[in-house]
Amino acid sequence: MTTFELTTYPAGELRRFTTEVFVRLGVPEADAQIAARVLQESDLRGIDSHGVARLPQYVKWLKGGFSNPTPRIQVLRQTPSTCLVDGDGGLGIVVGPRANQMAIDKALDVGLSFVSVTNSNHFGIAGYYTVEASRQDLIGMAMSNATAQVAPAQSMQPMLGTNPISISIPTGSPRPFVLDMATSAVAYGKIEIAHRIGNKIPIGWAIDNQTGEPIQDPGKVVGSSYAMLPVGSDPDHGVHKGYGLSAVVDIISGVLSGAMWGPFCPHFTYPETTHEQSQGRGLGHAFGAIQLAALTDVDRFKKEIDRWIEVFRTATPAPGFDEVLVAGDPQWREFDRRIEHGIPLVPKVVESLAQISREIGIPL
Amino acid sequence: MTTFELTTYPAGELRRFTTEVFVRLGVPEADAQIAARVLQESDLRGIDSHGVARLPQYVKWLKGGFSNPTPRIQVLRQTPSTCLVDGDGGLGIVVGPRANQMAIDKALDVGLSFVSVTNSNHFGIAGYYTVEASRQDLIGMAMSNATAQVAPAQSMQPMLGTNPISISIPTGSPRPFVLDMATSAVAYGKIEIAHRIGNKIPIGWAIDNQTGEPIQDPGKVVGSSYAMLPVGSDPDHGVHKGYGLSAVVDIISGVLSGAMWGPFCPHFTYPETTHEQSQGRGLGHAFGAIQLAALTDVDRFKKEIDRWIEVFRTATPAPGFDEVLVAGDPQWREFDRRIEHGIPLVPKVVESLAQISREIGIPL
Repeated sequence: MTTFELTTYPAGELRRFTTEVFVRLGVPEADAQIAARVLQESDLRGIDSHGVARLPQYVKWLKGGFSNPTPRIQVLRQTPSTCLVDGDGGLGIVVGPRANQMAIDKALDVGLSFVSVTNSNHFGIAGYYTVEASRQDLIGMAMSNATAQVAPAQSMQPMLGTNPISISIPTGSPRPFVLDMATSAVAYGKIEIAHRIGNKIPIGWAIDNQTGEPIQDPGKVVGSSYAMLPVGSDPDHGVHKGYGLSAVVDIISGVLSGAMWGPFCPHFTYPETTHEQSQGRGLGHAFGAIQLAALTDVDRFKKEIDRWIEVFRTATPAPGFDEVLVAGDPQWREFDRRIEHGIPLVPKVVESLAQISREIGIPL
Repeated sequence: MTTFELTTYPAGELRRFTTEVFVRLGVPEADAQIAARVLQESDLRGIDSHGVARLPQYVKWLKGGFSNPTPRIQVLRQTPSTCLVDGDGGLGIVVGPRANQMAIDKALDVGLSFVSVTNSNHFGIAGYYTVEASRQDLIGMAMSNATAQVAPAQSMQPMLGTNPISISIPTGSPRPFVLDMATSAVAYGKIEIAHRIGNKIPIGWAIDNQTGEPIQDPGKVVGSSYAMLPVGSDPDHGVHKGYGLSAVVDIISGVLSGAMWGPFCPHFTYPETTHEQSQGRGLGHAFGAIQLAALTDVDRFKKEIDRWIEVFRTATPAPGFDEVLVAGDPQWREFDRRIEHGIPLVPKVVESLAQISREIGIPL
């Protein structure tokens, strides 16, 4: 087990830095603020892999000309409740929030919405989008496809991204119920963390993509020939379910929207490599929302969901646990902690931000 | 390992029997035909647990006055794309198809739909509904809550049903992509099958609900003090994901619609027992549909999804497997086999149907 020092930054300071970096790279001020906010929310909720730790990749996309800093985001088709949006190769954390806002506006207007997005890239945490919807008394849905790292059930070939799904549900408090899950057995970030601190990873997370053998040394995953496994991990534990969910995310995000899909998705870390069989454009997302008031009395619903949460939080814990949680609880706890104490960053992330700071002359 | 004889019946014969049984118990002819069709589709697709094997339970509900044979199914609220439906205590396999048809009609009309259902009961396989939608060039969604058997992550108390979700996606062939999954690690039917043939069950399917210890003897599950586990099974393999998905199904099906939810859901096998804390009415479902033509060119989509399926079916198999499948493949294969050779029933199911036949005087 390796230990290292964490450096803590106030959330606002990282957000200011991130915004200025995006502006310096040609992103309009308003878009840069949105993008920085998506990363900040991830850091505040404790999802370290998707916060400022990802800034170097977005910078690489912008500097290399792989992302359009000033996309002309266009609606290609629409009905009162649906639309298809072309992200014009913009940053996922700019295109995503704009498309999600369309989903929110439509659901507030007509009760229900579904927005399909093509020609985008990585959109950050799916839970960012759905919480925005739930703040407006909507049940929010968000999904995205991503770089292929996950093997289908019965396969050892990386064909699917970790393809996240999020659903948020409003409650009587300002803190919605938030499901935000990769459809892989584990998020890639957890393998990176195990690698960083020198832990083995459990069987069921990843296999060798040449032999199908389980991988337990995270060093063999990070930068090597691996395939991650869908949630369920093996045939006895329902790996076909995780594979099926991941496939649904890929098809709805990619095939429906006209984006790339499956093994042909662009590589987030190496945007310069494109797959010869790629036909679609960029990554795809989908956003949807259901207006509570269209279906029920909102006050009745909020009382009942609060009762639901109370009943589940007071379920009998299993041995070894002292509490039962509800989706979002760990993230909201971390949120409160980090608002107060700041965002802790590992040395590798601090160094990567310092390097950006030096390169483009924005003080960290 | 125990072996026993299977008796094979032509699908049409079982459907005729089922229809006549429902009619004899007061269900109008048209509704009886719909209900029989839901069970038949389950049997044809090889999902034996949800076909005629369940007829005795529906009969018990009707004979005991726990289900309304002639429900007045009512729309309580609606917009062009949404509605809330009261099933008036009817059979789930009558209320479900009617509500799903509303979802189909709305999506064909305005491009998108979401239908919330209260006061229903078990609706059969979720995949029945979504395939109906996909036959109309819609992406179909269906979910339902159910009798509590599944423990939340970190708990050992049964609080949730096996809460299925289905998504079907149209393809260029008459056979859609069909995800149809319980959000538990395994369907309850698989534990019953292991019990019937005398196999152990894997760790990760069920625990003792008093001690939290894993159960490997299926006899300790069938009719005893167990809790099934959500997909993911344990903290290392993402049990919080399965729990989160199951919770979403329970909240959207039950809390949103005004049905019962969580541990207060009515018990399918023992409808005479009701929970003192139950406030809602019956089980809840949700149906939704997205019209392909609202978002894209349907021919373009069908060519691309067929290419997606081809690319995934030709992924490299892992050692021990000779093919990679796509969601729905095993069920469609079984469908073809059973259309030709009939539906094989185990002696216990044949005997339960024979008993219904004797009791209400309809020849099997």
